Amino acid sequence: MDRPTAGDGRTAADPDPLQRPTRPSGAPPREPNPAQILALGFAGVIVVGTLLLSLSAAWEPGRRVSYLDALFTATSAVCVTGLVVTNTAETFSTFGELVILGLIQVGGLGVMTMSTLFALLVGKRITFRERLIIQEALGQLSPAGMVRLVLYVATVTLAFELLGATLLTLYWWLAYDVPFGLAAYRGVFHAVSAFNNAGFDLFDSRRPSLERFAGDPVITLVVGGLIVAGGLGFTVLADLGRRLRHRRHRLSLHSRLVLVTTAVLLAVGTGLVAVGEWSNPATLGSLPLDRKLWAALFHAITPRTAGFNMLPMAELTNLTVLTTILLMFIGGSPAGTAGGIKTTTVALLVATVRATVRGDDELVLMERRVPALVAAKALALAVLAAGLVLAVTMGMLLWDGHALEATVFEVVSAFGTVGLSLGITPELTPVGKVLILLTMYAGRVGPLTLAVALTRRGRRPRVLRYPEERVLVG
Amino acid sequence: MDRPTAGDGRTAADPDPLQRPTRPSGAPPREPNPAQILALGFAGVIVVGTLLLSLSAAWEPGRRVSYLDALFTATSAVCVTGLVVTNTAETFSTFGELVILGLIQVGGLGVMTMSTLFALLVGKRITFRERLIIQEALGQLSPAGMVRLVLYVATVTLAFELLGATLLTLYWWLAYDVPFGLAAYRGVFHAVSAFNNAGFDLFDSRRPSLERFAGDPVITLVVGGLIVAGGLGFTVLADLGRRLRHRRHRLSLHSRLVLVTTAVLLAVGTGLVAVGEWSNPATLGSLPLDRKLWAALFHAITPRTAGFNMLPMAELTNLTVLTTILLMFIGGSPAGTAGGIKTTTVALLVATVRATVRGDDELVLMERRVPALVAAKALALAVLAAGLVLAVTMGMLLWDGHALEATVFEVVSAFGTVGLSLGITPELTPVGKVLILLTMYAGRVGPLTLAVALTRRGRRPRVLRYPEERVLVG
Ligand SMILES: [K+]
Ligand SMILES: [K+]
Repeated sequence: MDRPTAGDGRTAADPDPLQRPTRPSGAPPREPNPAQILALGFAGVIVVGTLLLSLSAAWEPGRRVSYLDALFTATSAVCVTGLVVTNTAETFSTFGELVILGLIQVGGLGVMTMSTLFALLVGKRITFRERLIIQEALGQLSPAGMVRLVLYVATVTLAFELLGATLLTLYWWLAYDVPFGLAAYRGVFHAVSAFNNAGFDLFDSRRPSLERFAGDPVITLVVGGLIVAGGLGFTVLADLGRRLRHRRHRLSLHSRLVLVTTAVLLAVGTGLVAVGEWSNPATLGSLPLDRKLWAALFHAITPRTAGFNMLPMAELTNLTVLTTILLMFIGGSPAGTAGGIKTTTVALLVATVRATVRGDDELVLMERRVPALVAAKALALAVLAAGLVLAVTMGMLLWDGHALEATVFEVVSAFGTVGLSLGITPELTPVGKVLILLTMYAGRVGPLTLAVALTRRGRRPRVLRYPEERVLVG
Repeated sequence: MDRPTAGDGRTAADPDPLQRPTRPSGAPPREPNPAQILALGFAGVIVVGTLLLSLSAAWEPGRRVSYLDALFTATSAVCVTGLVVTNTAETFSTFGELVILGLIQVGGLGVMTMSTLFALLVGKRITFRERLIIQEALGQLSPAGMVRLVLYVATVTLAFELLGATLLTLYWWLAYDVPFGLAAYRGVFHAVSAFNNAGFDLFDSRRPSLERFAGDPVITLVVGGLIVAGGLGFTVLADLGRRLRHRRHRLSLHSRLVLVTTAVLLAVGTGLVAVGEWSNPATLGSLPLDRKLWAALFHAITPRTAGFNMLPMAELTNLTVLTTILLMFIGGSPAGTAGGIKTTTVALLVATVRATVRGDDELVLMERRVPALVAAKALALAVLAAGLVLAVTMGMLLWDGHALEATVFEVVSAFGTVGLSLGITPELTPVGKVLILLTMYAGRVGPLTLAVALTRRGRRPRVLRYPEERVLVG
């Protein structure tokens, strides 16, 4: 790759496409950078979705949806969040629900994957610049093989959604005596919503989300499995696929980190939810032992970052609320449908702590060295995310006026594109709605990508090298 | 310095004394490392303090203090925190109060500074090993000049405390008609408590802490000035002293970072407190304009990490509570009497974000390059601190059972050795008291130092060099 080099003559080693001009020439880029294109792409789809959801055909007879609520719902769908100001099934017509489903699919696959698929369908050539943008969108380490990856992503998504929809349809049809047509409609909707970590549901507000299935093993396994699979990220799914086909293929460090961190978070989360709710009569307390465990598992899965719930959110104990906030902030894995600061970021932070306590001068993870710049990126992401959550929470406290705990929960849920709520979403003021929808957008585009989109003016080569000086820490 | 080198042949460049054996020879150290000596030293002083406060002579007539409460009070004093399970003036006799004062002074100066002063007084020689421990205790970058630094630290402390005590005594004597003896006693106690960021006070529980002086400009300036000075750290005070004596002396990067970050945090904090409380009738709302501003300034100073309060804590708005939690977590500056993750850590985190967004491959701050290992240490400290606060909060929710907001506030206050509370300290269960006192201890010793004390078995030279591999982030 032809890249600018740092002022000290070393070739900068970071392959992050954020840090590369979109054209391989050395001229200063005048076109928008990949981060800007992705940010604008999401915004464009949200605008289209808002217009569609503002049509009266999208509403149930007798209901009205304000432009602000249509914007909020479209943002929530495109950003695969699932926070709703109004019950979806009761407010939106079948057309409206299908619009939401489409927005979820576009948002989950990602704007760039969708437009590439469209270009391939109409026979258009994919330029090198477009490959760089896809690379950024899918968080890849090299722009090679981007078109094949997009096709793979689409195929895997379709396969998971089809499998999930079939299982859910059969289960609701056979075990719950739902008429086949309705069961199939709900099966498709919830499978797409689950794999894309969107968390939108079609159940009425009397027992919203999946509360009527608390501790149901089939729902836990199918919906939970779709959520976890979608949250692993397409890179990991592709790597796992290669491992299945070639027994001697070795999983990448990235895949192993994602799988181990995901397993640890699920185990710890399930334990903490079980401890927090075991004897709470409003949640796990009333369930038999096996359903207790299934529901605890589901409530460790859903904050990362699906947003369905089986237990009534308002009844959770303080310990579960804190656990949920933590899991929502961490979220899923990169280059998939999940939000949050991501599993790899947490793994890198923990590894940096371990290296510092040990006195190591390089970062070693699972017998691989990780460049210091990757750890710096993880740190930057975590700090930006924490700062964003704090700033939005302060704005909410000032202009929206809900309780501190519910506000922090709502903001972290929006940032992590989770969709869980302690119940204040429908009561948000207009300013609160705008703050939350901006947070969903920042969370989906990614705070780091957004920061680059808003500030990057092309990299200036450094001419001065400053003297080194140390600073006391701790 | 004779030091182990990394396996790749490069000399490890980190001068952190944590990462150095206590003897300059290459033999594996069998003696406790500096981190362990500091941790044990603090623990020893706490034990002595507990015994003294368990004597009935330390109690007001008719009062009893349980061993657990004596331990809690001694820990709170040695760790210069100021969380109290029982009102100090009403519970402890003058002897008890003087014990607390002594513990604050020992804890504020630091165990190593105190024992060095004692050794110098009795004419004992300070060994190289002891100089290394002082270096670690005072966070210095080199073991040279340690004895001079200890003497400087003691002199500066005494000077600030004398000046503050004189001003407070005169003010209370002349402006509040307090009898001279009582005014002097209170003046000394509160000056020592303020400069050491301890936050202990001698006012009764009807209007505790400095609530009777809400917005008083003299109290704000004297007590606030002592807090800020103590919180800058001795390194910065020494650097500022050199700057005053030699007009051409250039302040170190460390000093400039500390001063700028402190100024920014004070300005932002004052603004947020003012916005949060301006029209709250229970706090700023009832004060005239000038007192509003003084009290807002004081409430931006005190979370970092003094722990006095002028406004009733239970009446603060959500915005102020969140702002206070944030300021308490950040705390003051290294190598002083303040707790928290420290100003320099925040500055390094912000600088890393900026560098990542810009795509820089080195960390430049105020025209100086900062080594990547220093940023890694800042990151490790912040992550360890957040993890500690989270884990203790979860334990508190499980075994202590107070509200989430008050619990998080209490735990962050204990970690930052702040001493502010939303009122639950006297109501803590025995388990809650133990968790909070352990948190105060971890906060004062420093989570990173404590982690090294608990785990470091001497550095093993690395023989293998693992291949490099990247990980997706964000
Ligand atoms: K979601
Ligand atoms: K304090």
